[in-house]
Amino acid sequence: MALIVQKFGGTSVGTVERIQEIANKLIKLQQQGHELVVVLSAMSGETNRLLELASEVNSDPRGRELDVLLSTGEQVTIALLCMALAQNGVQANSYTGSQVRILTDNTHNKARIMEIDDSKIRADLAKGHIVVVAGFQGCDEYGNITTLGRGGSDTTAVAIAAALKAEECQIYTDVDGVYTTDPRVVPEARRLDSITFEEMLEMASLGTKVLQIRSVEFASKYNVPLRVLSSFTEGGGTLITTEETKMEQALISGIAFNRDEAKLTILGVPDSPGIASQILCPIAAKNIEVDMIIQNTGHDGTTDFTFTVHRNDYKDALAVMQATAKSLGAREVSGDDKITKISIVGVGMRSHAGIASTMFKALASEGINISMISTSEIKISVVVDEKYLELGVRTLHNVFELDQE
Amino acid sequence: MALIVQKFGGTSVGTVERIQEIANKLIKLQQQGHELVVVLSAMSGETNRLLELASEVNSDPRGRELDVLLSTGEQVTIALLCMALAQNGVQANSYTGSQVRILTDNTHNKARIMEIDDSKIRADLAKGHIVVVAGFQGCDEYGNITTLGRGGSDTTAVAIAAALKAEECQIYTDVDGVYTTDPRVVPEARRLDSITFEEMLEMASLGTKVLQIRSVEFASKYNVPLRVLSSFTEGGGTLITTEETKMEQALISGIAFNRDEAKLTILGVPDSPGIASQILCPIAAKNIEVDMIIQNTGHDGTTDFTFTVHRNDYKDALAVMQATAKSLGAREVSGDDKITKISIVGVGMRSHAGIASTMFKALASEGINISMISTSEIKISVVVDEKYLELGVRTLHNVFELDQE
Repeated sequence: MALIVQKFGGTSVGTVERIQEIANKLIKLQQQGHELVVVLSAMSGETNRLLELASEVNSDPRGRELDVLLSTGEQVTIALLCMALAQNGVQANSYTGSQVRILTDNTHNKARIMEIDDSKIRADLAKGHIVVVAGFQGCDEYGNITTLGRGGSDTTAVAIAAALKAEECQIYTDVDGVYTTDPRVVPEARRLDSITFEEMLEMASLGTKVLQIRSVEFASKYNVPLRVLSSFTEGGGTLITTEETKMEQALISGIAFNRDEAKLTILGVPDSPGIASQILCPIAAKNIEVDMIIQNTGHDGTTDFTFTVHRNDYKDALAVMQATAKSLGAREVSGDDKITKISIVGVGMRSHAGIASTMFKALASEGINISMISTSEIKISVVVDEKYLELGVRTLHNVFELDQE
Repeated sequence: MALIVQKFGGTSVGTVERIQEIANKLIKLQQQGHELVVVLSAMSGETNRLLELASEVNSDPRGRELDVLLSTGEQVTIALLCMALAQNGVQANSYTGSQVRILTDNTHNKARIMEIDDSKIRADLAKGHIVVVAGFQGCDEYGNITTLGRGGSDTTAVAIAAALKAEECQIYTDVDGVYTTDPRVVPEARRLDSITFEEMLEMASLGTKVLQIRSVEFASKYNVPLRVLSSFTEGGGTLITTEETKMEQALISGIAFNRDEAKLTILGVPDSPGIASQILCPIAAKNIEVDMIIQNTGHDGTTDFTFTVHRNDYKDALAVMQATAKSLGAREVSGDDKITKISIVGVGMRSHAGIASTMFKALASEGINISMISTSEIKISVVVDEKYLELGVRTLHNVFELDQE
């Protein structure tokens, strides 16, 4: 018998039939003696329907009232699931974020959870009930409804699991786990039985959109074992947990890539203290997010400075950089929006030398030129021409033998 | 400058365009210096859509979870109206029943309001904001969401007006006021500028479905001036208020009728104390509501006892009565489900004699036979054959000169 928090999202609650399937699944688990807390998203399509309504009355619907509107989406699903459970004679109460209560800051549309009152949940569990909680939403200290932003339901589930010290937080999605890389690029890609939080964070931020990165950070911080499973197929999914629990560490756990990158270089910029912030502040002022940043050792009193942005921001960033180059007296600005970033991720590389050189050698052997390199403790990222994306990922998947257990 | 509570229901908030029209109307009123609290229902059709979803997962969806589900309907409209106001630069906050908070008992699906905390509303009004409140809903002392039952939004509006001591509570509907009788039956029917609470209660309970009777009772109890207006046309509507405010009292204010009646008579029943309850208890036990009750003075130790029920309950009531007649040793049971009830209503009849005889004479002159008569202080009801409904109503409208101011 264990206390388990399960989260079901969009397509898993997309129809009344799906909701009934979840009810059946829960009843089976309860009969096995588990205590269950369920976190639900809105039915797929509902959030967009509500956003469409909002945009018809307001050209820029944001803030407090958008949260009042959007939070109805989960309120519908939690009520329906409890009704489906009741139809089968199983007692369950639903709770909105405000009712639990899930206290957040007052940043409407992307609030952060500050505290969860678990008293109602614990009282219901003690009575043998299943508890159903609305994901994605909470309330601020004055009782105003807040939402956590897209994917916030994952965060709700993890936060509740942390508050209850649940044995596991299980996130049901439309994929059956975390893979060594995208199976559409490498058919031999293998589902990982487990991965560490750090690896998952690197994988997630690099474009493996299985879980919201915030929920992984949260799970890592509070050490909540997190499992990704499929709503539609059987299987154990992938357990995301701390490093220690893994018996033998693979060198590399996975390969992430990001197609939507663009790079900008400012050449021959006077190399003086504070130059990086002088270059990047005007970019930040335009709300453009910067990903990789590389500054080479300078010579002749000047340096070259390169960074990458999302491809959608490329043109804006280029215009900003041209103005900056002029004001700083730099030689010129160049850029390329036909690039891609490939990263290998693995906690194993901490204790093993030679990973980087294996990576570079493998890419070189296929004639793939590397234009940027960036490393962290458990990750090595390279920027290459976008035409080499598939070849590069397959080559690395092969050389690090990721298709084998 | 006055504090006004306005309530808009179903079709008035049926589309995004309608919600924008309400926003425009409110902005104009605010510019005239009024303080405004707005109570909204769900968009027309939304409640039925949610009920349909519920019935797909549960054959008898009732209780707590139905309230969680249905309360999302108003939550959508209040958010949309605030957005529409914001689009025009007018500050407005929305509040669900729980947020206000509107404290109710815990009778889910038909809760009764116990207390309203007006502090948030007053604070917003003091800042010059428009306040938008979800009708139909509240929460019990444990924070469980409750709903007030069909038409509950009218009650919410009146309760808030009472709590705030508002100058007026204005209920916007799809009719432009209360009429002397149904204009579909009598084309000369006239809109009343004002009517007393007592008259309105008699009119409402007799089938004039302009306002929910609960909201009129509530307004009467707390002496909240209540105005019925059309959402779609201009005009002052009908003010429902206490008797004292009317300068000169018309004898009769209106004529109500009810098509859906059926009568049952138990003949020759032994006339002993407690006989009425012995007859009616088995009816109540079947959840059948009884309307008019008439018992004539007995003779020969027996009496005749007649009552009316809704036509839908006629067959059930007849079966119950036949069993009762047997056990009480009554002579026989007769019934008729082709009857109709016509009532004249007016506080003026308190101080004027001869109203009843005028009524009976007018009906007799048209050859309309009266089979039952029942009177209250401000109402006289007669039961006649249903074929005389239109003729009877027109005759009485004419004889009491209701087409004239």
